[in-house]
Amino acid sequence: MVTEQKLDGKHVAFLFTDGVEQTELIAPLAAARAAGADTALVSLEQGPVQMFNHLDKAETIDAALAVKDTEAASFDALVLPGGVANPDALRRDPDAVRFIGGFFEDNKPVGAICHAPWTLVEADVLHGRTLTSWPSLKTDIENAGGHWVDENVHVDGGLISSRKPDDLPAFCSTILESFAQEPAHVGHA
Amino acid sequence: MVTEQKLDGKHVAFLFTDGVEQTELIAPLAAARAAGADTALVSLEQGPVQMFNHLDKAETIDAALAVKDTEAASFDALVLPGGVANPDALRRDPDAVRFIGGFFEDNKPVGAICHAPWTLVEADVLHGRTLTSWPSLKTDIENAGGHWVDENVHVDGGLISSRKPDDLPAFCSTILESFAQEPAHVGHA
Repeated sequence: MVTEQKLDGKHVAFLFTDGVEQTELIAPLAAARAAGADTALVSLEQGPVQMFNHLDKAETIDAALAVKDTEAASFDALVLPGGVANPDALRRDPDAVRFIGGFFEDNKPVGAICHAPWTLVEADVLHGRTLTSWPSLKTDIENAGGHWVDENVHVDGGLISSRKPDDLPAFCSTILESFAQEPAHVGHA
Repeated sequence: MVTEQKLDGKHVAFLFTDGVEQTELIAPLAAARAAGADTALVSLEQGPVQMFNHLDKAETIDAALAVKDTEAASFDALVLPGGVANPDALRRDPDAVRFIGGFFEDNKPVGAICHAPWTLVEADVLHGRTLTSWPSLKTDIENAGGHWVDENVHVDGGLISSRKPDDLPAFCSTILESFAQEPAHVGHA
């Protein structure tokens, strides 16, 4: 991918756990690094995390930070990859939910793809927001006060959302564009 | 398991797809068969379904019926096993959601364990009902109008719910007890 966005000096967190869809982590991670961002791999614990290709185990990747030991204040932006089991586990962890909520409190941009918005339901940040997701989450998002749309990428203030791996080109270019702006410019209206 | 319940002449459907938690399908299936029930394995399509032990692939099992070709009227009771990817896929299928909703319209008993209640959220049958589930679903259930409790098994009219594989002994004995009653006795109050 050729990117014109520059993320030099930006600190971008990626939060995920076992079950994360490999391509939804690796593609945005590569894009952010290529744009010059400092990236941090955050999980429930430090150490290896099992990635998946849908229902098949894929590679493992090492998380450098446990979410309980960090906070949104240490970063400029957050990426939440999907994979059905990943957000299902993250949403049960109060530290993960607090970490995610901190980006919304601080009006820092958040990219969420596929099943990731279950954690946004849990953080109770969807009231009045418009987003897309893997379509199975539509009802859960609407029941949480969000407005669901079927688009390859949707931007609502600082929340950038996409549906699935096929949307990754649009997702990656849009999060880079958002992350390159100053936080004050991308807060939720 | 020794059961004193008799399900002779009862037709019990089990609805599931790839990702179903193996023990949450096999244990209630064995219990229903041991009690004399006629059991039907129903999935999105006829043929092999990939069961899981949490994130590990387990055995496959053949579904005899596609959900689009059947209806609640053909059965006396329904069992919905868990496994995170299973109800996430079922809820996207309108025939599966319609099939499940039919049991509630007809006041026929339904047993749901673990992640299965996502399909009940989708069928919009949880308003005013009390149930338990895998704890990650608590917020989705409450946002859908249900009341969530943390119990190994909970009975609300014809809805029998449990949290996880450890609850299977209580779940299996309770669904047999409910299924053995006449439908008119187990409808939602």
